[in-house]
Amino acid sequence: MGNRFDTGRLEAFSDGVFAIAITLLVLEISVPEDAFSNLWRGIADQWPSYLAYATSFLTIGGFWLAHHGVFRRTAYADLRLMLANLLLLMVTSFLPFPTKLVAEAIESESAERAAVIFYGATLFVASALVTAMARYVAERPELMRGPVQDELHALTRSTAPSLAFYGGILVLAVLAPQVAAFGFLAIAVLALVRARGEPEAGEQPAG
Amino acid sequence: MGNRFDTGRLEAFSDGVFAIAITLLVLEISVPEDAFSNLWRGIADQWPSYLAYATSFLTIGGFWLAHHGVFRRTAYADLRLMLANLLLLMVTSFLPFPTKLVAEAIESESAERAAVIFYGATLFVASALVTAMARYVAERPELMRGPVQDELHALTRSTAPSLAFYGGILVLAVLAPQVAAFGFLAIAVLALVRARGEPEAGEQPAG
Amino acid sequence: MGNRFDTGRLEAFSDGVFAIAITLLVLEISVPEDAFSNLWRGIADQWPSYLAYATSFLTIGGFWLAHHGVFRRTAYADLRLMLANLLLLMVTSFLPFPTKLVAEAIESESAERAAVIFYGATLFVASALVTAMARYVAERPELMRGPVQDELHALTRSTAPSLAFYGGILVLAVLAPQVAAFGFLAIAVLALVRARGEPEAGEQPAG
Amino acid sequence: MGNRFDTGRLEAFSDGVFAIAITLLVLEISVPEDAFSNLWRGIADQWPSYLAYATSFLTIGGFWLAHHGVFRRTAYADLRLMLANLLLLMVTSFLPFPTKLVAEAIESESAERAAVIFYGATLFVASALVTAMARYVAERPELMRGPVQDELHALTRSTAPSLAFYGGILVLAVLAPQVAAFGFLAIAVLALVRARGEPEAGEQPAG
Repeated sequence: MGNRFDTGRLEAFSDGVFAIAITLLVLEISVPEDAFSNLWRGIADQWPSYLAYATSFLTIGGFWLAHHGVFRRTAYADLRLMLANLLLLMVTSFLPFPTKLVAEAIESESAERAAVIFYGATLFVASALVTAMARYVAERPELMRGPVQDELHALTRSTAPSLAFYGGILVLAVLAPQVAAFGFLAIAVLALVRARGEPEAGEQPAG
Repeated sequence: MGNRFDTGRLEAFSDGVFAIAITLLVLEISVPEDAFSNLWRGIADQWPSYLAYATSFLTIGGFWLAHHGVFRRTAYADLRLMLANLLLLMVTSFLPFPTKLVAEAIESESAERAAVIFYGATLFVASALVTAMARYVAERPELMRGPVQDELHALTRSTAPSLAFYGGILVLAVLAPQVAAFGFLAIAVLALVRARGEPEAGEQPAG
Repeated sequence: MGNRFDTGRLEAFSDGVFAIAITLLVLEISVPEDAFSNLWRGIADQWPSYLAYATSFLTIGGFWLAHHGVFRRTAYADLRLMLANLLLLMVTSFLPFPTKLVAEAIESESAERAAVIFYGATLFVASALVTAMARYVAERPELMRGPVQDELHALTRSTAPSLAFYGGILVLAVLAPQVAAFGFLAIAVLALVRARGEPEAGEQPAG
Repeated sequence: MGNRFDTGRLEAFSDGVFAIAITLLVLEISVPEDAFSNLWRGIADQWPSYLAYATSFLTIGGFWLAHHGVFRRTAYADLRLMLANLLLLMVTSFLPFPTKLVAEAIESESAERAAVIFYGATLFVASALVTAMARYVAERPELMRGPVQDELHALTRSTAPSLAFYGGILVLAVLAPQVAAFGFLAIAVLALVRARGEPEAGEQPAG
């Protein structure tokens, strides 16, 4: 027994957790039955749910892409990387809870601030874990699959800005929670349109 | 880092989301406890839930087939295709919400119209995304896996009619929402019985 | 475009749906908060939920095994087999609903009969679909992966008894619903202990 | 037909169930709407839910690792191993129910003892099944993939302590249920930091 963990299975398991967490988000959305007398309005009134749904969905989508970017360049994981990955999955799986909270609380003056900060803090932690994992592998050639150090550093540089953005939006959330809620969506969209794929002549990943 | 996204993983992730979305649909179905005195009737009264369940299940099943038809002919995805795919997954994962809504509202005179149109519009958007993705790849030989342009155009031609049908049924939904609800089921069944698989001597897909 | 459907992906997608349906079953189990004053009793009182959970879990487990037994011997699916498979997944995904119903209704004299029959009928339909799929492939050498006709016929003979058992228990359910509920568990256990795997020198399945 | 069950598919199916069970845990967490007037406090008051979530998440994570450790060293499963695996999945899938119970009951003096013991007993059974499966394969060279007997024995020795710990904490639970609840978290963390991966020059597993 050694301390190498097969990235193929880690990735397949992680993909499963990402896919399920992303799909469970919808369960929190519903229109109360007393809104059925004017259902168009009832549907429109759920806008905080849609905002929260889209933000969490696109954010997890971005985590999934970055995660895949790290692991396809990783030959095997050591114990720390494996544990960091489990932690990332734990935070990602947790996300439907703050997502529901922010959707429910965003129109309540007493609750919106706490809900948005709690939500943003969860996103920040997950984002920090992804970036830390990329950096961790980038500094350990023995974990890499081939000479991918530069690619990993590029990946870190592309995910790191999200961290700074999350920090900024979290400060904004204290003053203007509703604006901050849209800010998290903007970060997710930005991370996705800036996402980078594989180099032109890459070999097929194992997983 | 380039702008190529591995279709093997995209497909595996998408399959996961399709499988979960399709399976979550059942969670919305239940018989209220006060119907237990005459449970056969209570079970029968849930017909709108069964109709909505079957329609969404078979529609997502059709999306899954068409999606696979596109991606097994795609060597790698560029950023736009990857983002369109994420959008398709977001709309598909969203489907349990309008499905629940249509099941609850179809017997309420004030709400049925809005619910059916909202439901049909979601199906229309997802269907349009699938068709757009097929066309997008069909016009970009550099994304294709081998000389599959004709097959992709055939695929587009086979999914495009659904779009027209959805348009027609959406107009019908304004006048006769309940009839339209059955129309969506008919579109799903039609798309499935017209589904086309692989050519006789195809190579194995990577995913 | 032809009419061949890749069994590797069909199987992976089906496995996903089976795994999710089997895991969603637990969501229906809960102890009402007013039973917290005597929680041991409150936990024990949920026995119909445990019975229903175990029965559905083991039944789906058996379907999954039989399904895998068919598809690992199938080179590709034609349109009918693909549609039958989708129907099987639709019925299997539906199972959490009658499972919940039987757990809730089994101690209600007015409702237990209907709930148990409805539950058993769902199991019967799914079981019939699995057997029909095995027979369908067994009669079409062009669909088979190698000379596996005898194995497929053996598989049909091993799943067919469940069908007869379901028929018998369904009749019993009219007279004694609670006994019948245990009968469905017995069928599931029996099917599992009689399950047959691969021949000694089989080649690896593709999926 | 023989009595060999393909471990590749068993593992993929098991991974799916582990991933779903681990992700469903979050659905039980929510803040009651009347806590919105002081949401920070409302969020903090959910600590039993977070404790239960983290404990179950990390415990299932540990099961998944140990499970993978067994199956990557198993060439094929016989009927007993396959059934033991199904039983393990059934207990793991069941876990969200005692997890919810322990989160709800831990602050109720009348209910906390029963809830914590019930929860711990479920963990104990799952843990015993994992250890039994490792031992079962370790004693049957015909099931092994290569000369891995020593590795399997090492794996058994590394998972067995958890069993003893669970026994001890279960006794503690009678006297001090809240302390015991933290004990289960400690066991999960300990099992993870002591987890062992693959040997340095291992061949790629099939799954």
